[in-house]
This record gives sequence, structure tokens and C-alpha cells, in this order.
Amino acid sequence: MSSHHIVRDDQEPALIIANGAACSKELLGQLLEWSPFVVVLDSAIDRVLNLGIKVDVLLGDFDRDFNPDIYKESQFPLEIIHTPNQDKTDLEKAFDFLIERGHQAVNVIWATGRRADHTITNITNIVRYRNILKIVILDDHSKIFLLPEKFQKWYPKNTPLSLIPIGKVSGIHSQNLFYPLQNDELTIGYRTGSSNHVFEDGLVVIEHSEGDLLLMECWD
Amino acid sequence: MSSHHIVRDDQEPALIIANGAACSKELLGQLLEWSPFVVVLDSAIDRVLNLGIKVDVLLGDFDRDFNPDIYKESQFPLEIIHTPNQDKTDLEKAFDFLIERGHQAVNVIWATGRRADHTITNITNIVRYRNILKIVILDDHSKIFLLPEKFQKWYPKNTPLSLIPIGKVSGIHSQNLFYPLQNDELTIGYRTGSSNHVFEDGLVVIEHSEGDLLLMECWD
Repeated sequence: MSSHHIVRDDQEPALIIANGAACSKELLGQLLEWSPFVVVLDSAIDRVLNLGIKVDVLLGDFDRDFNPDIYKESQFPLEIIHTPNQDKTDLEKAFDFLIERGHQAVNVIWATGRRADHTITNITNIVRYRNILKIVILDDHSKIFLLPEKFQKWYPKNTPLSLIPIGKVSGIHSQNLFYPLQNDELTIGYRTGSSNHVFEDGLVVIEHSEGDLLLMECWD
Repeated sequence: MSSHHIVRDDQEPALIIANGAACSKELLGQLLEWSPFVVVLDSAIDRVLNLGIKVDVLLGDFDRDFNPDIYKESQFPLEIIHTPNQDKTDLEKAFDFLIERGHQAVNVIWATGRRADHTITNITNIVRYRNILKIVILDDHSKIFLLPEKFQKWYPKNTPLSLIPIGKVSGIHSQNLFYPLQNDELTIGYRTGSSNHVFEDGLVVIEHSEGDLLLMECWD
């Protein structure tokens, strides 16, 4: 079997390509390497197809004089999911679609940059998928995910780590962060744990008892 | 008096140039047109000077082998403010500096894009300056500011407007929005008012009784 015939076992996280700023080709290439199930949101399809990517699903409300059927032939087989409901963003609808299809994890790119309202909504809305879908948002400077009540991961010394509370988060304890937290409370807009970093090579432990806490691994 | 000799009355908002993604030259030019008091954050100075801008203040913790004094001659007079305190971001320190100097309003550019932790912290932290400093964050797709309890402004039909609660905001009423709010509550991460728009040419009124509510005027 040649390397072009990859059998997908659906253990690999799906990939959603949203409609914000494009990421580097390097990041895109890394995420496509294991041939994930690819969902593209709405009019991002034009920019995506210019990159020569095979897309599995095109999803959106298609509300801007946009005809999704013109992509059916070049991308065969392409599933088109029309989601006119205006109560949710296209990204949330894509999460719901993946959950319905049995996916358990997803990476999301192009969800940041450009419009600030979309950026902040895309990043903060992942909290409502806790325990339902494992979501990681990535761009050229950031990797963002929701922390479980107890999080542990090995990091090299000085890795920048930012703790961003979505609302109020209490009972926070950390190990191996340069600015340690001990039964601390963080509140968006008033006290965040942005721009911390790893104290020494080793396990970082972050625990919290209440609220929604995002971890952002960011770099310049 | 030639047009090069502009007398500043300090009624014009100051301009902070932060350290995120650069904006278009058009936006920068518009903001510089009335010769505002210009504060540049930390290592952004290199990118700013490449654009031929006269800077009034260079402010930062200068913690990355960075010698601010080398800019003193070419930018004379240039005030250098060293702010080593790690409890605040450079942007917050710049706000504090402007308040101390008696400024009442500031526009902020280059505060979004690149690192997501900086973007979200810069945007959400403006809420703590309510009634102290009038802050507007701008980039090529967005204009962001904190709403007073009662906000009124004339907008053309279909202008995109997003209401982003920083925490929980209650008692929200709107007039002339396509998706009206009537004694509504918005909560970051769970229920936001993103991607609304103006119903018809005219005054938009947005009132809220509790919490911190940002308005984002955004465009693609």
C-alpha cells in the first residue's frame, strides 16, 4: 500500500478551517500530515482550495450570495452542510456536527486574527464543550485549550504559559510556574494569569476548583 | 504658521502603539493626522521607527537585552519610561502613565493579532479603566470600546455590531439592532451578542444595568 492510501481510524483529531486569518503553510502541513477529517467553514473554502487541500465537509449558512454546489465536482466526495440557524456561529455548528458524527477531538485553525469579535467569540466559546469535544485552537503564535480540573504536562524551562479565565475561576493552584498560584482567583478583565512561564524543565501542574480556565501556549 | 507647526491642545486622544500585529498605513495615518501624543511600547519601537513616525514616549520593561537609550538622539526629545513592575502589562502601564499625565482619552493600535494571550488580555483589561480613561482599540477589522450604562450613536443600516460581555452583564436593552435585546443577560463563553447589526439608518441605543460590556464595530 503506498503512502498515499492512508486508512483513517478516526482517532486522529478532525480539523476545522474557520474564516479568520490564514496560518503558515508549515502549521497547516503539520495538521494535515495524518490526513484528518477536514471541515471548512463557509466562504473560507475559496482560500482553502487555492492551497490544494482535499476537503471533506463544507459547512455554513452560505448567506452572502454564495453557491456551495460549485465545489462538489472538484472536491468529490464533498459533503455540504447548510446551517442557517443564526443563534450559533459557524464554528459552534461545526463542533455540533462533529459531535453528532462521533468525533471526540478537533484542531481548529484560521479561527483568530482579522475581526476581533470573531476571535474573542471563537476562543471563549470552547468552554461550553467541556467533556464533550476536545478542542484545540492553533495559530502561528498560539495553542489554546480548556483545562480540566487537574492538568499536568511536561514543559521545558521558560516556556511561556498564559492562564486566561473565561469569567471567574477560583481555587487555582500551580506547580512549576515562575509566578506560582496558591488558592488564587482569576477574573477576566480584572486579574488574569497572562504571561507566566515554566520555572524549570519538568511537569507543570495546574488545578482549579471552579470556573472555566483556558491555557494558552504562546510565542513571539 | 505652516501646517508643520501644529499646536497640541491635548484634547486629541493620545496614541499608544503596542506590540502586536501592525495595522495598515491608512489607519495609522488617520490616527496620526492631528499629531497626537505618541507612546510606543517596548520593542515595538524598531518597527515604528521604520515607518518614520515621531515618538514622544518609549515605555516598557526593556527586559530582552534592549537598550532604549539608542533612540534618544534620532527621536529627540524622547521620554523613556522604564516600568519593570511585572504585575501589569506594558499596555496597562501606558494607560497608568497617561492618566498620571492628565490625558483623558487614548486610541490604541497594534494591540491585537499575533499572540492570542496578549490580544485577549489587551482587549478585556480596558474594562478596569471605566470613568478614568476613554480607551478605543483599533485594528484593520475592528474598533473596540467599553460601553457606558447608556450608549447612543447614529449608525447606517446593516453596520455590524458585536456586544461582548467581559464576565456577566445583565439588564441589557437595545433599540435599532436586528436581533433586539430586552432585559437580556450575556455571559462570556456562554451567551454573547456577537454578529448583530443595525436594523435601519438611525440611532442605536444600548443600555445595561450591571457588568462590563464591550462594543465592537467590526468589518471583513
